[in-house]
Amino acid sequence: MDRVRLEYKSVLGFVAEEEIRRQGEAVLLAHKRLHAKGGEALGWVDLPVRRDLQQLDEVIGAADQIRSHSQAFLVIGIGGSYLGARAGIQMLSHSFCEVHYSSGPAIYFAGHNASSTYMADLLDLLDDRDISINVISKSGTTTEPAIAFRILREYMERRYGKRMAKERIFVTTDGKKGALKKLADEEGYTSFVIPADVGGRYSVLTPVGLLPMAVAGLDVEEIIRGAADAHARLGSSDLAKNDCYRYAVLRYLLYQKGKAVELLVSYEPCLQYFAEWWKQLFGESEGKEGKGIFPASCLYTTDLHSLGQYVQEGRRILFETVIDIERPRREVQIPEDSADRDGLNYLAGKTMDYVNRQALLGTLLAHTDGGVPNLILKVPQLSPYHCGELFYFFQKACGLSGYLLGVNPFDQPGVEAYKKNMFALLGKPELAQRRQELQGRLEDLTP
Amino acid sequence: MDRVRLEYKSVLGFVAEEEIRRQGEAVLLAHKRLHAKGGEALGWVDLPVRRDLQQLDEVIGAADQIRSHSQAFLVIGIGGSYLGARAGIQMLSHSFCEVHYSSGPAIYFAGHNASSTYMADLLDLLDDRDISINVISKSGTTTEPAIAFRILREYMERRYGKRMAKERIFVTTDGKKGALKKLADEEGYTSFVIPADVGGRYSVLTPVGLLPMAVAGLDVEEIIRGAADAHARLGSSDLAKNDCYRYAVLRYLLYQKGKAVELLVSYEPCLQYFAEWWKQLFGESEGKEGKGIFPASCLYTTDLHSLGQYVQEGRRILFETVIDIERPRREVQIPEDSADRDGLNYLAGKTMDYVNRQALLGTLLAHTDGGVPNLILKVPQLSPYHCGELFYFFQKACGLSGYLLGVNPFDQPGVEAYKKNMFALLGKPELAQRRQELQGRLEDLTP
Repeated sequence: MDRVRLEYKSVLGFVAEEEIRRQGEAVLLAHKRLHAKGGEALGWVDLPVRRDLQQLDEVIGAADQIRSHSQAFLVIGIGGSYLGARAGIQMLSHSFCEVHYSSGPAIYFAGHNASSTYMADLLDLLDDRDISINVISKSGTTTEPAIAFRILREYMERRYGKRMAKERIFVTTDGKKGALKKLADEEGYTSFVIPADVGGRYSVLTPVGLLPMAVAGLDVEEIIRGAADAHARLGSSDLAKNDCYRYAVLRYLLYQKGKAVELLVSYEPCLQYFAEWWKQLFGESEGKEGKGIFPASCLYTTDLHSLGQYVQEGRRILFETVIDIERPRREVQIPEDSADRDGLNYLAGKTMDYVNRQALLGTLLAHTDGGVPNLILKVPQLSPYHCGELFYFFQKACGLSGYLLGVNPFDQPGVEAYKKNMFALLGKPELAQRRQELQGRLEDLTP
Repeated sequence: MDRVRLEYKSVLGFVAEEEIRRQGEAVLLAHKRLHAKGGEALGWVDLPVRRDLQQLDEVIGAADQIRSHSQAFLVIGIGGSYLGARAGIQMLSHSFCEVHYSSGPAIYFAGHNASSTYMADLLDLLDDRDISINVISKSGTTTEPAIAFRILREYMERRYGKRMAKERIFVTTDGKKGALKKLADEEGYTSFVIPADVGGRYSVLTPVGLLPMAVAGLDVEEIIRGAADAHARLGSSDLAKNDCYRYAVLRYLLYQKGKAVELLVSYEPCLQYFAEWWKQLFGESEGKEGKGIFPASCLYTTDLHSLGQYVQEGRRILFETVIDIERPRREVQIPEDSADRDGLNYLAGKTMDYVNRQALLGTLLAHTDGGVPNLILKVPQLSPYHCGELFYFFQKACGLSGYLLGVNPFDQPGVEAYKKNMFALLGKPELAQRRQELQGRLEDLTP
């Protein structure tokens, strides 16, 4: 079957079919909330079939332009304006795409941290290559990307001149308001719209994710097609027919039984940032009101030689969701060695992926036996189509999951707490009194 | 103070000084076990002052040779034969060292996974550069590195001829026995010894970690000097005078109070793999007998826009250990912009690191207020000296921590479970019956 699908038979030792079925009514209610016009979920649910929100033609046009005149492309964004694009690009590109150039520019990320070392090192790369920039921020005032853009805009204008720099700066921001929208209008930068009713972590299928992925040479039409098919397939309110709802229900039931940590596991290193995207999606949607599964990730077999011991025999607070890629992008055969000094000749002629697959299957059984339930998400291959499907699968699962847990999966009130402190400490004039309080507390903490 | 040190005052709202002091006796006992001649801890405790085990002169000589005749250096290893070197190299190198070459070779890792796509992509990089290889494996029969070495040895012999390939293959393995030792002796490869009494995850200060770090151009003498000074400083059995023991006690007490997950947090992206090294160290040492803190990691401020919501308001099962780098390797100033359309002019003339630091301080208070205890590890700067200090600090803390928890921190019995299944599924002749059983179970799982 050429689609993403969930296998959960090995979990039935931990959760009974009857328990799953009993969630059918709660799922129906949550489904209605997700699809309600004007509800909290809003724009992203139907995004894959809303051509107006994707702006695909404009995205592809801009990407062609960028690819034709750039050897490096800087994507400036943080959180939901960063992880989706990075996840898709890593999943579908050459493992060493920054070194092993294809026809398009190398992609670098900026504004996703406040490290001066990272920024200074990044600037080292720029002088001998032609650069384009995509700055992504709904408001334009998020500190990290705003600082990065200020530094890099200045760099671009110094290097190319103000007029030419404009041809190389692309903005993705709110359609109507905000500092970045205003700046883009005044300077005449090519702009893309983040739909007002699509939250950051649900925005990968808007120009937020699509433009960087298109610049990386990915077939964004196919990504959207995969998401649109998933939209149709996962549109049923019937738990028995909807794999992403079943995933949501199973993880909810496991959480009720004391599984506090979910590990997203993959056997392909190119899924490292997909796991990061997933961690934001679920962590930010569910981690509130003292609730929520803690989302973590592993890359196996690497981490079987690291966290594997803990997963097998540590505290039984874990379950795993394994992304099982059925066909690898490339194959390598294990050669024969007549001396067989490493004892591997029983594998000669087999492929590395065959070994990877037996590791996956063996681990599935070992961890299940060890008391760690394993959900399996079968993915036919890492293609743009299935990438789109995966994005949509997890987004919809996450929306439902949050509702089952009894939280609003579309807000993130806790993200403000550190920002408020940081702005005070940075000396924002209107927060002077808070600054004094915080500095007093900090002095008490440091000997 | 130019040394790594622990600050824990903000944790005193969660743990009382008296509770800490009460652990003094348990610490003393554990300390004695750590330092016992012939105990389980064995070789690594005194490694920083055992020149014979470091083989520093030979390591530096080989590194010079490799650097002189290679544009790419492949490090083949997994788990403890992989993470330490990668952690040190990433911590101390240019953020884009694979693209922005310094004088030495670009470093690539292999044999740390079984992905055929990764291996095929890696092979793409090799043809137009001169290559050297370091294969690291105590036994030589660990599946992933053995496969990678078989493929890459064949590549090297095909390309350079058998005789010349020998000059470019470096082996780090057991001093006396094992498949790789035998192969190295027969072929005449330059070899380094993994001391018999040093376990994988404690081996970064042997040639396992030192040779790749030296090839990357790091000052390994300084790394050892930092570790040796830490060895002296952290040699006291007195809890009040030993920061790494205090760290171990605090995390143990937090665990007793229901904190099931420790987040190692850093604000510098170059510590990503140091966190991975730390996760193996603690996860593999403590995750057994149904016990242990689950080790996870975050890179802030990136993840403040991702997992930050969960940390601030999700389930209160977390505590954080924050690595606070006091001086950045490089600085970048935030420029003035007369129009101030992004509203950042209150930061003009300040450095990015100043912002990063206020983010750290603001987050420390916000998370503590949110019920997440914060331990702070102050590190003067990311230098080779402090890198060595950090490695030793956490190793010794981990040994003590495991003893406090009541487990043997130096074994890893659970790592075998998946391997046993995998070998059976791969068709090892002697496991034929187990294979049949496992395949039957797998058929039941898959519709």
